[in-house]
Amino acid sequence: MEKINRRQFLKKATAATALGSTALMTACATEEKESGAPVVHSGKKFRWNMVTTWPPKFPVLGEGAELFAKWVEEMSGGRLKIHVYGGGELVPALEAFDAVSQGAAEMAHASAYYWAGKAPATQFFSAVPFGMNAQQMNAWLLHGGGMSLWEELYAKFNLVPFACGNTGVQMGGWFRKKINTLADFQGLKMRIPGLGGKVLKKAGGSAILSAGGEIFTNLERGVIDATEWVGPYHDYIMGFPKIAPFYYYPGWHEPSSVLELMVNKSAFDSLPKDLQMMIQTAAARANGWILSTFDAKNTEYLQIIKSENKTQILKFPDEVLAGLKRFSNEVIQELVDTDPFSKKVYESYHRFRENMTAWSNITEKVYYNDIGKM
Amino acid sequence: MEKINRRQFLKKATAATALGSTALMTACATEEKESGAPVVHSGKKFRWNMVTTWPPKFPVLGEGAELFAKWVEEMSGGRLKIHVYGGGELVPALEAFDAVSQGAAEMAHASAYYWAGKAPATQFFSAVPFGMNAQQMNAWLLHGGGMSLWEELYAKFNLVPFACGNTGVQMGGWFRKKINTLADFQGLKMRIPGLGGKVLKKAGGSAILSAGGEIFTNLERGVIDATEWVGPYHDYIMGFPKIAPFYYYPGWHEPSSVLELMVNKSAFDSLPKDLQMMIQTAAARANGWILSTFDAKNTEYLQIIKSENKTQILKFPDEVLAGLKRFSNEVIQELVDTDPFSKKVYESYHRFRENMTAWSNITEKVYYNDIGKM
Repeated sequence: MEKINRRQFLKKATAATALGSTALMTACATEEKESGAPVVHSGKKFRWNMVTTWPPKFPVLGEGAELFAKWVEEMSGGRLKIHVYGGGELVPALEAFDAVSQGAAEMAHASAYYWAGKAPATQFFSAVPFGMNAQQMNAWLLHGGGMSLWEELYAKFNLVPFACGNTGVQMGGWFRKKINTLADFQGLKMRIPGLGGKVLKKAGGSAILSAGGEIFTNLERGVIDATEWVGPYHDYIMGFPKIAPFYYYPGWHEPSSVLELMVNKSAFDSLPKDLQMMIQTAAARANGWILSTFDAKNTEYLQIIKSENKTQILKFPDEVLAGLKRFSNEVIQELVDTDPFSKKVYESYHRFRENMTAWSNITEKVYYNDIGKM
Repeated sequence: MEKINRRQFLKKATAATALGSTALMTACATEEKESGAPVVHSGKKFRWNMVTTWPPKFPVLGEGAELFAKWVEEMSGGRLKIHVYGGGELVPALEAFDAVSQGAAEMAHASAYYWAGKAPATQFFSAVPFGMNAQQMNAWLLHGGGMSLWEELYAKFNLVPFACGNTGVQMGGWFRKKINTLADFQGLKMRIPGLGGKVLKKAGGSAILSAGGEIFTNLERGVIDATEWVGPYHDYIMGFPKIAPFYYYPGWHEPSSVLELMVNKSAFDSLPKDLQMMIQTAAARANGWILSTFDAKNTEYLQIIKSENKTQILKFPDEVLAGLKRFSNEVIQELVDTDPFSKKVYESYHRFRENMTAWSNITEKVYYNDIGKM
């Protein structure tokens, strides 16, 4: 889809959703009051739009968004219908935040680090280099104060956030040359966004921004030397095994990326309580579904990549990981030093992580090293 | 609560729920049919009972069951109210399966390995020694065929199962003497149920069954030498740090125990589709909530146990884990050899695990060993 400018899109979207979200009254006004029974709903119907930062029907992520909408529609018996748009269909992918904040769409499925330009602290709610993994993030968000901080930050933008998926630990990317030492990053042109890109710069490389559709060609033609993307499933679909022989792990820059559902706060507050609870509950279900689906599909496509014998799957050398971790700490420190809300979030994030790691070290870590060894 | 015999309880329960689940018609019969809109519901109200295998309001597990009921009630605007009973309140804890199968209660929150006497294959749907962890179990259930097999097995008992929580990797238990070699299990009397108990027997120990309320006294008086329970939070509440100095990890016998929601199939089938979807969605939410809550509380109580300086937290020596794994493989093999459905489930479980472990090894395992090292 051809890009038109942002204002045109937002205008178009506003027009579309002003119509789309008109609440229709139905015949039955079920305002029953029974002994202590909650007042349920007025039978109002809602037609909402969800914009996403993924291409339409994008594997796992777009599918998760569609499933979320389906669950809500079925639970509400059709009272809340959500139309899911791919990035660029209603607004360009990276306009999703503004669109929902301003009410041009009622909700979006995205990942919070896309909005670092709005508020740098958003990055802690999706992924920071050498940050927490999925299981730890879920515990922090739910019980370590993470969710409250996220809500506090998003309230400033008239948004309500929900955790709504996780990629799990990602891969480190596709390289045309081997990485043997930290020095091999000198002069390396890699497609890697966000804080990961800043870390790469500290290591002497150049972080190149490429839209999804251009990465393959850029890597093939040597415009870039390397690219990260997600994991075996998405990377295989992108065709990377055809043009880069070295597939590195782990994805130090995204040790788990939380996906978010964000809802326009005024729209959310105007919903009856039962529909609010359905959104919250379906988001939590999608949170688990997306991680499990990534795990299952990545498992399958890792096998396919191996079976084709074109790819060397390699671990970054210890020295390289140690160096990248050092640079990552510097990047996080700079973020925390320059943004007070990031400092506040990082203090909660880091404290929780330190404590939980003591628990992970005698449980999940031992699981992978001993119990589940195959 | 004093125990009365099983028949009395089931009779009592049947009487109670026959009343409790009478569907009440409300004033509004919302059988609206709009252009393609699903037929929603007839406004029927359902009053259901959930029995559990936990003591009333039991931390994390009982709390998770109560939350599940709350979410369903709020989403349904009170159309489906679920009363949660602790074990022994309506039926004895270990009668939950029969109670729900026979319709004496509509649902139960439990763990499938309690029903090994009904069908040995149930154990694969909660925990087997040296089995999968939470993240892998979730992926297997959702995308590896696990859930379909579980449904197939439970359908024989007029039950519909849902994954509804996970303990994560448990602890190995509290010991009065150090375990230095596999030989230290010779003659050891340990409270450890199920397949873990069979493994202990192979190692020369005795698996003793104690109800939860008796474990403390038995361990204090030396009737038993060791006990497993869950993790730091529950174990601390039980008082174990006061009477056993050695706290071993990992919980090789339960590397993650799935909790289940089981629903009487006839009752479930009789629900309108929207309420069915709410049950399914709330169960999936509880699935994540319970794991995160275990993680957060165990993190907190591990610190408390450490701060009291009474407990030595020790890892089972490698030789011990290797020996227990060997015995576990024998125990699983015996199970698979003697029960055709267990064989069928194990084939799916084992194949999925083998494939997913290749993925875990380059992601989560590296996370714990390198990225998230603290």
